[in-house]
Amino acid sequence: MATHKIAVIAGDGIGQEVMPEGLRVLEAAADKFGIDLQIDHFDFSSWQYFERHGQMLPDNWKDQIGGHDAIYFGAVGWPEKIPDHVSLWGSLLLFRREFDQYVNLRPARLMPGITCPVVRRDGSARAPGEIDMVIVRENTEGEYSSIGGRMFAGTEREIVMQETVMSRVGVDRVLKFAFDLAQSRPKKHLTSATKSNGIAITMPYWDERVAEMAKAYPDVTVDKFHIDILTAHFVQRPDFFDVVVGSNLFGDILSDLGPACTGTIAIAPSANLNPGRTHPSLFEPVHGSAPDIAGQAKANPIGQIWSGALMLDFLGHRAAHDAVLQAIEQVLAPGSGAPRTPDLGGCAKTQDLGRAITQAL
Amino acid sequence: MATHKIAVIAGDGIGQEVMPEGLRVLEAAADKFGIDLQIDHFDFSSWQYFERHGQMLPDNWKDQIGGHDAIYFGAVGWPEKIPDHVSLWGSLLLFRREFDQYVNLRPARLMPGITCPVVRRDGSARAPGEIDMVIVRENTEGEYSSIGGRMFAGTEREIVMQETVMSRVGVDRVLKFAFDLAQSRPKKHLTSATKSNGIAITMPYWDERVAEMAKAYPDVTVDKFHIDILTAHFVQRPDFFDVVVGSNLFGDILSDLGPACTGTIAIAPSANLNPGRTHPSLFEPVHGSAPDIAGQAKANPIGQIWSGALMLDFLGHRAAHDAVLQAIEQVLAPGSGAPRTPDLGGCAKTQDLGRAITQAL
Ligand SMILES: CC(C)[C@H](C(=O)O)[C@@H](O)C(=O)O
Ligand SMILES: CC(C)[C@H](C(=O)O)[C@@H](O)C(=O)O
Repeated sequence: MATHKIAVIAGDGIGQEVMPEGLRVLEAAADKFGIDLQIDHFDFSSWQYFERHGQMLPDNWKDQIGGHDAIYFGAVGWPEKIPDHVSLWGSLLLFRREFDQYVNLRPARLMPGITCPVVRRDGSARAPGEIDMVIVRENTEGEYSSIGGRMFAGTEREIVMQETVMSRVGVDRVLKFAFDLAQSRPKKHLTSATKSNGIAITMPYWDERVAEMAKAYPDVTVDKFHIDILTAHFVQRPDFFDVVVGSNLFGDILSDLGPACTGTIAIAPSANLNPGRTHPSLFEPVHGSAPDIAGQAKANPIGQIWSGALMLDFLGHRAAHDAVLQAIEQVLAPGSGAPRTPDLGGCAKTQDLGRAITQAL
Repeated sequence: MATHKIAVIAGDGIGQEVMPEGLRVLEAAADKFGIDLQIDHFDFSSWQYFERHGQMLPDNWKDQIGGHDAIYFGAVGWPEKIPDHVSLWGSLLLFRREFDQYVNLRPARLMPGITCPVVRRDGSARAPGEIDMVIVRENTEGEYSSIGGRMFAGTEREIVMQETVMSRVGVDRVLKFAFDLAQSRPKKHLTSATKSNGIAITMPYWDERVAEMAKAYPDVTVDKFHIDILTAHFVQRPDFFDVVVGSNLFGDILSDLGPACTGTIAIAPSANLNPGRTHPSLFEPVHGSAPDIAGQAKANPIGQIWSGALMLDFLGHRAAHDAVLQAIEQVLAPGSGAPRTPDLGGCAKTQDLGRAITQAL
């Protein structure tokens, strides 16, 4: 079996703390399933690198990691040292765009042993698996654009503009991915996030492309909601959703809100996919670098570990993915006696949870 | 005492059903507090008007309602007949911009008798008043812009662009309103919604203006969150928030999500304010025309009624506002024996609830 080359970038803050646990589980899974991994570590995409070099990445970053099969990523951002938009556009957002990772795939599932913060209408608690959705986010264009600027700076007439850019190519390819995914799932239900009543130029276009694409998927149930009421539905009936597709910004919002509705965003994984495999895909937890808890070894590593499972799946090892997921569920299950980090109501350390999941595997 | 001239526009769908109840309570409050109201009804801003005239408003709409002290508005939008962006930009969004209603004020409070869908961390239910925030939304510019268009239409190269526009005047005036409001409340806590890590041209500007404005309000505690994690915090710790200020789009999202976290957006009110009173302000429920339940007399009229209370307050009648709020709370209180619409778990009609609140007043 071919060796998979993995570029590891732990990055900032708790990225440094959860990555070792992600690798611990990844390597254990590789052992168990006889998967050959070559792990290369890179220290760029961090504030320390920026302090030394005045930029987030080396000039030849594409040569260094572009030939890998996947990037296993921790987190980036340290606002005390670098403004977020500088660090993010200088690394993560650049990877997504330059490596054409046009799908950002983010499952949100209510796991066993987690108190779900959103109750049913009658006030009763939701059961594990009752929330089980996947957010498909456009990941290269839309509201995250680099066209715009400022005029009359420093005066009363100051004005700042930024384009939202949607292309047919960009919209259609992510929609196609989302429709295919919906079709492959039992519920075959796709929800599109829009805001065509207010954002009346780009969003009606999005709706138009959804309607066009839907024709090719007669067996997929399609609905659309404006993003404002959609966030309300996430809280009021999260069990309604199956696959949810949204623009770069709307997908960003929904993929924090969805996991929040399942109890904790600390466990949420994400896959930045280049489905055509022309460049490496990138796997990272949904959470960020969390400066407020960094350095205390109390971050929950499950988002990182689950992202590693998605990477194994993308590399063709479905069984290994499933085994890691099962190990996570086993450790989270009430009564498992396994350690829990503070966000899960315990006082265990990051490492303890990583070790317990490795054990379970 | 001067007569207040109120322009009433019931609009589409359940707007037609909740408005009579709004007026019922408004007139009862006027009676009780000796307030002189002149109520003028207008039939434009509805799909029926559009069918007859080919436009949402008469050409002289500004002459017809521009001289009123306030607009009491139901809802607009009937996608079966008119695309939402046509109806909305042809009426409500036009009022907001042309009448320079640059503040959209939206309280979200957990009321008695309502099951709160978001529980505390330990799984216990939240108490009335535990969530009590006001969302201040910029209401004339930002993401809701009319600059942009489409190129290479109908081809593979098709591209659609839309500008987000932020002006210093536009940003500063809504921030000033939000800071003043925060300063006037016991918690003196202002949260700014941003996304400066991703939307890296306009949003860093927003942050810059917030930081600048904060200097003039040393007694206000200011924090900022990216919109993605902010929606998660709304679910996980809604009690943390006091005044939350956001751009047009972010304010739109948060002012559906906030009320959803307090149990029902059907009761949420909003005030589109022109603080300088150069043009009329507009008062409307947060909910829309709700085609799915229109015509069945089951809509909850409290959003409309509460919006009427905000109007009374804006017109200088704080005591009348407070009395209406008290009547609403009294009717909602568990054990009040008052009727409840389906969204509140009962089977009462819109009118029943309107009458009960009038009675309580
Ligand atoms: C109907 C729509 C255009 C409107 C908006 O987005 O402003 C509504 O959602 C609101 O919040 O008042
Ligand atoms: C850090 C930030 C730029 C990023 C985004 O907005 O895409 C993050 O929130 C995410 O969701 O991956």
